[in-house]
Amino acid sequence: MSTTVDTVVVGAGLAGLTAARRLVEAGRTVRVLEARDRVGGRTLNHVLDDGQVVEAGGQFVGPTQDHVLGLAAELGVTTFPAHTVGDTVYVHGSRSRRFRGDIPPDRLALPDIALATTRLARASGEVDVAAPWEHPDAGRLDAQSLATWLRRGAIGAGGVELIDTLLGSAFGAAASEASALYGLAYVAGAGDEIHPGSLDRMIGVAGGAQESRVVGGSQVISQRMAEELGDSVTLGAPVRRIEHRATGVTVTTDAGSFDGEEVIVTAPPHLAAEIEWSPSLPAHQDALFRRMAFGTLMKCEAIYERPFWREDGLSGQGVFRGGGTPVCSMFDNTPPSGSPGILMGFVGGAGWRKWAPRPARERGGAVLQSFARVVGPAALAPVGYFEKDWTAERWTRGGPTAVLGPGVLTTLGQWRDRPLGRVHWAGAEHSDYWNGYMDGAVRSGEAAARAVIAHSGGHP
Amino acid sequence: MSTTVDTVVVGAGLAGLTAARRLVEAGRTVRVLEARDRVGGRTLNHVLDDGQVVEAGGQFVGPTQDHVLGLAAELGVTTFPAHTVGDTVYVHGSRSRRFRGDIPPDRLALPDIALATTRLARASGEVDVAAPWEHPDAGRLDAQSLATWLRRGAIGAGGVELIDTLLGSAFGAAASEASALYGLAYVAGAGDEIHPGSLDRMIGVAGGAQESRVVGGSQVISQRMAEELGDSVTLGAPVRRIEHRATGVTVTTDAGSFDGEEVIVTAPPHLAAEIEWSPSLPAHQDALFRRMAFGTLMKCEAIYERPFWREDGLSGQGVFRGGGTPVCSMFDNTPPSGSPGILMGFVGGAGWRKWAPRPARERGGAVLQSFARVVGPAALAPVGYFEKDWTAERWTRGGPTAVLGPGVLTTLGQWRDRPLGRVHWAGAEHSDYWNGYMDGAVRSGEAAARAVIAHSGGHP
Repeated sequence: MSTTVDTVVVGAGLAGLTAARRLVEAGRTVRVLEARDRVGGRTLNHVLDDGQVVEAGGQFVGPTQDHVLGLAAELGVTTFPAHTVGDTVYVHGSRSRRFRGDIPPDRLALPDIALATTRLARASGEVDVAAPWEHPDAGRLDAQSLATWLRRGAIGAGGVELIDTLLGSAFGAAASEASALYGLAYVAGAGDEIHPGSLDRMIGVAGGAQESRVVGGSQVISQRMAEELGDSVTLGAPVRRIEHRATGVTVTTDAGSFDGEEVIVTAPPHLAAEIEWSPSLPAHQDALFRRMAFGTLMKCEAIYERPFWREDGLSGQGVFRGGGTPVCSMFDNTPPSGSPGILMGFVGGAGWRKWAPRPARERGGAVLQSFARVVGPAALAPVGYFEKDWTAERWTRGGPTAVLGPGVLTTLGQWRDRPLGRVHWAGAEHSDYWNGYMDGAVRSGEAAARAVIAHSGGHP
Repeated sequence: MSTTVDTVVVGAGLAGLTAARRLVEAGRTVRVLEARDRVGGRTLNHVLDDGQVVEAGGQFVGPTQDHVLGLAAELGVTTFPAHTVGDTVYVHGSRSRRFRGDIPPDRLALPDIALATTRLARASGEVDVAAPWEHPDAGRLDAQSLATWLRRGAIGAGGVELIDTLLGSAFGAAASEASALYGLAYVAGAGDEIHPGSLDRMIGVAGGAQESRVVGGSQVISQRMAEELGDSVTLGAPVRRIEHRATGVTVTTDAGSFDGEEVIVTAPPHLAAEIEWSPSLPAHQDALFRRMAFGTLMKCEAIYERPFWREDGLSGQGVFRGGGTPVCSMFDNTPPSGSPGILMGFVGGAGWRKWAPRPARERGGAVLQSFARVVGPAALAPVGYFEKDWTAERWTRGGPTAVLGPGVLTTLGQWRDRPLGRVHWAGAEHSDYWNGYMDGAVRSGEAAARAVIAHSGGHP
């Protein structure tokens, strides 16, 4: 038994739900198929004992992310500023130092940070986000790791190590894993068609991608869209097979088969490659998708009766250099009501590799020790604690996004968004701007909906 | 309905069949489950019109590959020397030059080749194949691409480019895609416990890994083992799910469910990660397997009435520098009877990226043009032609083996062979020596059988 709609959408995250919403607005019928028993993809609200929520997944929004902000506004979802009042703490070796702004007070590393930031700004400005492989020096930039590129011309190892830490949270991977060209394209994408991308905007809080949070938790955006789509969203329906013909598509899930004129696939590329395709995906597109494994990232959050660090003039933010701690960066994640107090730490990249295999109790203890380095020993006695390891999540398998190693972008990158007859691609990894972010997901969903409407214009 | 055996083996390639064979010898019952409708994995005989065979997959064996050679001898399978009589041809730009030996006559590149070979020999000699991450400089070596490492200290780009060509066939990937540490470990593994690995042995014909071929085609080794195993081998049974408990395992395929005390999984790691595991694979093992995407490689073979190039004093071997041709290296692949004449070219790495998406006719024409650069215009008029694109093969998805990018080996490498309760790993990627080769596959199968026997010693 099979159900027929105009467009089948695989995945009920921001990309899939946005695509479905735009298609319904255009008068099309849709069916959104979601493997999980919930919507939201890499956004996930964690409900606290008192019913308030805090995010266990993607959560921050900021300037130039007008697509996700516009969608939120459309849905009546509001935002509030992330907490930035007070000093941030820089942790290096046995020392913890307070500072203000985004640049840690490391006198030895400062010249390198300045140099690296300038080089990144200049070099990323030369990259066309829609076609990084067209860069005149693309071959050379893609043949080296971002770590190699950062080290070249650096004065010492300090600045490189620190930038690596900052990227650890943004990427879930060390700079060694990314191609330099991919890293530059990623930075170039931290903006929009008018505002060129920048590292500052990518890693910054005030004025940057961590500036604001979503009232009710970021998952609420997907939940509102799903409510409006109603019965068109089917949960618990992992897609096992997609048959695509000149006349239409058939998508087979654990919860039945669905026929459509077109299909938009928003699963992470490395999971899209696991679907049984008939006919097969082109070998080059499959080869690319398999090389888009996600970074390794978990979020660890501790709950306190109140955000006590604010009373000490601390923002709750911390930057950890050198890899001695599981946490590479941390934020005040207190709900807009002001209590309970919540600290959130990213355990990403090399930190994840080291700490994820350890027993939960040991890891949790080390995370609290990391927090204590920033806000003092009171961090050791939370009233609650939870973790979300996105790498262990069956239908994501990593976080926050894909990391392309050297040699991939120039040889296979152009296949990323290429439609395959009636098969269209969306998802945060299919966006030129804010690739890997909520805004990129929304952008990609809107673009896929437009492509389907254009492509199916001629259908009966 | 389910069948119970001592050990379920996933995959009927060399690793799986060898494991099953050794287990049966030890008195165990086995069931080998193969997704394809044939055995042999990455070995595949192509039958010529006259009934002779030539290989479309892995084919060469050489010194120190005593595990596959020993197995062949056990099965009554013999080998014969690859054709090496005559000159090899070096193709660069518009020039084709004849030479003897393994080092092309490129005067400008020669100093770099010598330098790179010496550096590779020295540096790979310092790598422990069983634990490359223990190298004192492992972090630095793993943070850079092999291309970066080769370029460092090189005099010009020529030598690097040429070594890249040689690796293109061995790896199916450019040196830009591999971590330097992984590349060094790969070279260090081109030997055995007594003979240290070397680049010469890896890329060489006489005295190297391309020294001999298998009479009847390399797939015959697997076919003989499968014959002896009889009904214990089930074809057309892709494994979809593996449940592993303290008391045993259940393996679910499209052809039924199979219970066992233990399971040996020999699927390529990146495909093993696609199986539905219950409980899940540890996130770190999954993260590693997903980062073990295979190189991109196809074999293109042209058939002629006789090996006419031999009459011109040519070996039929060619080395192509610079990437202007689809073929990066070619060999005389004539059957031991001496006719028909067959030329085989590898289209790998960057060449595959460029040429695989093109129409078959255009690609075939360019391959024959490549052959003509080596043996003259007679190459343009074959009596037959066939290609095998291993990247398009559903149950391999690349070739010849996994290529680890920077940052993976040091942070996740130790999880490669780690058993998971009653789950054991084998396959060419699970061997320290001749990783990715037929010998590595046989080694891994033997090791897995020993591990199962040791592990299950205490079972009732």
